[in-house]
Amino acid sequence: MKIGLRNFIEHKWFSRVILSVILINAVLIGMATNETVYQSYESTFVFLDILILSIFTIEIILKLILYRKYFFKDGWNVFDFIIVFGSLVLYNTHLVGVLRILRVLRVLRTISIVPSLKRLTSALFLAIPAIGSVTVLMGIIFYVYAIIGTSFFGEVAPEYFGDVGLSALTLFQVFTLESWASGVFRPVFAEMAWSWLYFVSFIIVSTFIILNLIVGEIVNNAQQLSEHAKEESEDMQKLMRDMDELKQMIREQNHHNKNKTG
Amino acid sequence: MKIGLRNFIEHKWFSRVILSVILINAVLIGMATNETVYQSYESTFVFLDILILSIFTIEIILKLILYRKYFFKDGWNVFDFIIVFGSLVLYNTHLVGVLRILRVLRVLRTISIVPSLKRLTSALFLAIPAIGSVTVLMGIIFYVYAIIGTSFFGEVAPEYFGDVGLSALTLFQVFTLESWASGVFRPVFAEMAWSWLYFVSFIIVSTFIILNLIVGEIVNNAQQLSEHAKEESEDMQKLMRDMDELKQMIREQNHHNKNKTG
Amino acid sequence: MKIGLRNFIEHKWFSRVILSVILINAVLIGMATNETVYQSYESTFVFLDILILSIFTIEIILKLILYRKYFFKDGWNVFDFIIVFGSLVLYNTHLVGVLRILRVLRVLRTISIVPSLKRLTSALFLAIPAIGSVTVLMGIIFYVYAIIGTSFFGEVAPEYFGDVGLSALTLFQVFTLESWASGVFRPVFAEMAWSWLYFVSFIIVSTFIILNLIVGEIVNNAQQLSEHAKEESEDMQKLMRDMDELKQMIREQNHHNKNKTG
Amino acid sequence: MKIGLRNFIEHKWFSRVILSVILINAVLIGMATNETVYQSYESTFVFLDILILSIFTIEIILKLILYRKYFFKDGWNVFDFIIVFGSLVLYNTHLVGVLRILRVLRVLRTISIVPSLKRLTSALFLAIPAIGSVTVLMGIIFYVYAIIGTSFFGEVAPEYFGDVGLSALTLFQVFTLESWASGVFRPVFAEMAWSWLYFVSFIIVSTFIILNLIVGEIVNNAQQLSEHAKEESEDMQKLMRDMDELKQMIREQNHHNKNKTG
Repeated sequence: MKIGLRNFIEHKWFSRVILSVILINAVLIGMATNETVYQSYESTFVFLDILILSIFTIEIILKLILYRKYFFKDGWNVFDFIIVFGSLVLYNTHLVGVLRILRVLRVLRTISIVPSLKRLTSALFLAIPAIGSVTVLMGIIFYVYAIIGTSFFGEVAPEYFGDVGLSALTLFQVFTLESWASGVFRPVFAEMAWSWLYFVSFIIVSTFIILNLIVGEIVNNAQQLSEHAKEESEDMQKLMRDMDELKQMIREQNHHNKNKTG
Repeated sequence: MKIGLRNFIEHKWFSRVILSVILINAVLIGMATNETVYQSYESTFVFLDILILSIFTIEIILKLILYRKYFFKDGWNVFDFIIVFGSLVLYNTHLVGVLRILRVLRVLRTISIVPSLKRLTSALFLAIPAIGSVTVLMGIIFYVYAIIGTSFFGEVAPEYFGDVGLSALTLFQVFTLESWASGVFRPVFAEMAWSWLYFVSFIIVSTFIILNLIVGEIVNNAQQLSEHAKEESEDMQKLMRDMDELKQMIREQNHHNKNKTG
Repeated sequence: MKIGLRNFIEHKWFSRVILSVILINAVLIGMATNETVYQSYESTFVFLDILILSIFTIEIILKLILYRKYFFKDGWNVFDFIIVFGSLVLYNTHLVGVLRILRVLRVLRTISIVPSLKRLTSALFLAIPAIGSVTVLMGIIFYVYAIIGTSFFGEVAPEYFGDVGLSALTLFQVFTLESWASGVFRPVFAEMAWSWLYFVSFIIVSTFIILNLIVGEIVNNAQQLSEHAKEESEDMQKLMRDMDELKQMIREQNHHNKNKTG
Repeated sequence: MKIGLRNFIEHKWFSRVILSVILINAVLIGMATNETVYQSYESTFVFLDILILSIFTIEIILKLILYRKYFFKDGWNVFDFIIVFGSLVLYNTHLVGVLRILRVLRVLRTISIVPSLKRLTSALFLAIPAIGSVTVLMGIIFYVYAIIGTSFFGEVAPEYFGDVGLSALTLFQVFTLESWASGVFRPVFAEMAWSWLYFVSFIIVSTFIILNLIVGEIVNNAQQLSEHAKEESEDMQKLMRDMDELKQMIREQNHHNKNKTG
């Protein structure tokens, strides 16, 4: 019976059907954002939502039966489990907002169903550790600037530097270079002339770090090539020593032969 | 007769004349945007437009006679056909807007006439498949965020998140980092404090994907080099084994010779 | 006498003195922008300006005597000649604006005096031909969009799309992503719903071309490496064939020796 | 006794304790930015600040005793010394602002304590010399444009081009493309039509230089690879000449042997 279940679940038509359900779900939640459309066909939307949730629940139960504890080894399965069983648990509670978000997140399941998207996303997740130290460094810099900003500009521009959280948010805006001068800097600058140093230094430091991260990512792969080339050149050195040895050996042989016949 | 036609069409002067007509057409439509200039010389503009359209029509008919069905194998020929015969069909209809755009698009024919521009454009089109999966992934992310944005901010900022289409447009603006904070985020943030998570996460995720796409494109070519290098190092290994074998053979020979003479 | 002149001009102290004069000139024109400072010491400024111009004139005359027609082979010399003799010719005319700009441009002479800056600038100029085709392609795209913009948005937003020139300027602003949505697009969008297609397509196309240009520039050098590697692998193939031949030769020799002694 | 001190200072628990103190310090200054929290527990904050400063002082004195003059060889030690003894000297003076900044900068000590962050920061500092010439070139361009801007737009837009300093700041804003058109350029453009040349040329030149710097940084490493490959190909040439020589030698030997036995 288990082999039958495996054949059923791992059949290409199974994932195709699930993908179709995901896409129908996506279209439905898109349409449901329109209030007038939603109110006219509310019962249909509710019915289809329950139907889709049931299909997903059955799908996950079947997979749980088949793979058991191995099911949770795959991060995408954990993701599926959370958004489906989260919906089940929260159904008929007052956390409508969370439920709505869970319903939308089902669209992300497309990624785990389509192989090329799954590969792409895995590649993106693999790139995260490489930016780990940079994230910590950026965090320290944001924190230092956020505290300086809050201490000195907190009263001049409370909507931007009112507390450490607001300052960090404003610094993120400055980091993306959005209205950093026209919106944030110039009003502060009008009150405190030295503030240009704060903003210009922050922009230069943060941009410099991010640019170096990107250049580093690219060059990193070049360096792996370089190490490859280094190994090869060591092989080459060995080959050249061998060649000299070989020539010496043949020279001796020639000398020996000549002596013998001479 | 067909050879004569071929010599005529493929002669360098033929494409030079067509290029001149395209450039004159470009200058004319540029001048025609000035209302006062256009009204003063309206009949001249109309006459020249008919003349240019006739030249293009004759050019395409000649090419159709010569190349027959092979004419439509080249995407640029299809493009030429559509903008010229589209103009003919729409002439004297009320679709003046479409006709005007078709007239402007003739300027793009410069690309298909100048070889270096054609090569460049072909290279650009070749780069599109590489971004296919990324486009689908970005589409999913835009859709998920657009629906969340419409559901939660639709009433707070209807001009930005009124419906899914408007939300997608706003997300494109946020993605380009244009007034994302000063224009879109801060008014929403004033009403809903958690909205910073929505905007900051969207910017980080979308920028991260695009940066990875660019880094990936560059590194891809480095990887092709790397595979090249791998093959080479296998050759190197074979060479080194051969060298050892060779030395062993000569050593045996020397040993044999010595035994013989000893 | 000519050797004496050469020794004088090509002496390291000569260019050091000229560099000092350029830097003093830079500081002076910086100070002269301050109206109150300038009015207080106007005669000193005028005197020093004449002195500096005289030194530059003598420098160029000396170089002209020494190098004659070869003087104009170097683009930087031509640049020096224009800004110095331009100043001389325009002195005491009413073209005060041009004269002022010529005076400021003398600061750029620092580049031609400092070797590392000259190398850097030469490298930058070398990168220009590589972007030639891209510039022409961008020009065509700007022109097509500028005409469409002028025809359709000219009346809705005359300050942005009033004529082809203004439209091109606005498109440059959109290309830099500056206030493209908040300033330019949203007011037009309020009148013409389809305008989003115009702006979004322009941003995607122009950004795509520029990103490809940058990726291409980087990958180009990688390709040169790749060709290098290809040559090397051909050498490797030849080495491996030689090695086989060698082993065959030694094998025959061994066989021959064995037969002889057997 | 000195060995005991060394064991104590270089023990992993020593740096862990210091790191904890730094992090506690970071949390405290974060909390102290909230006026109400600070006023409620002012004495606690003051006490903890004195305690932390004492711990840092003792740490540095111990290190000074152990490493003596070698202590100042490491830039991070100098940094630690300045922010700790700066705080001591300025305590109870009226330079509260500087003292506050010194207190915040202690958070940066995290970098020198965590090895991976120290490595990352060192790598970033190593990248600075490579951008030296570019910085000088950018400085010259900023200076030239700042003076032109001050001379011509100083009266039209005094808040942006009032003096050379303000102009340089505005050019930095234009360089980051922030509100360059909507905020700075369009009001000036309304008065002086030729100003578009000033802004567009500045954006193109400065962006071109920075893009070339980034491309150059990436390609630089590729060139190092290329030189590596060149050396290797010279080795390869030598190997191929050796191989020919070897074959010649064996051929002669064969010929000799054949003659002998023939």
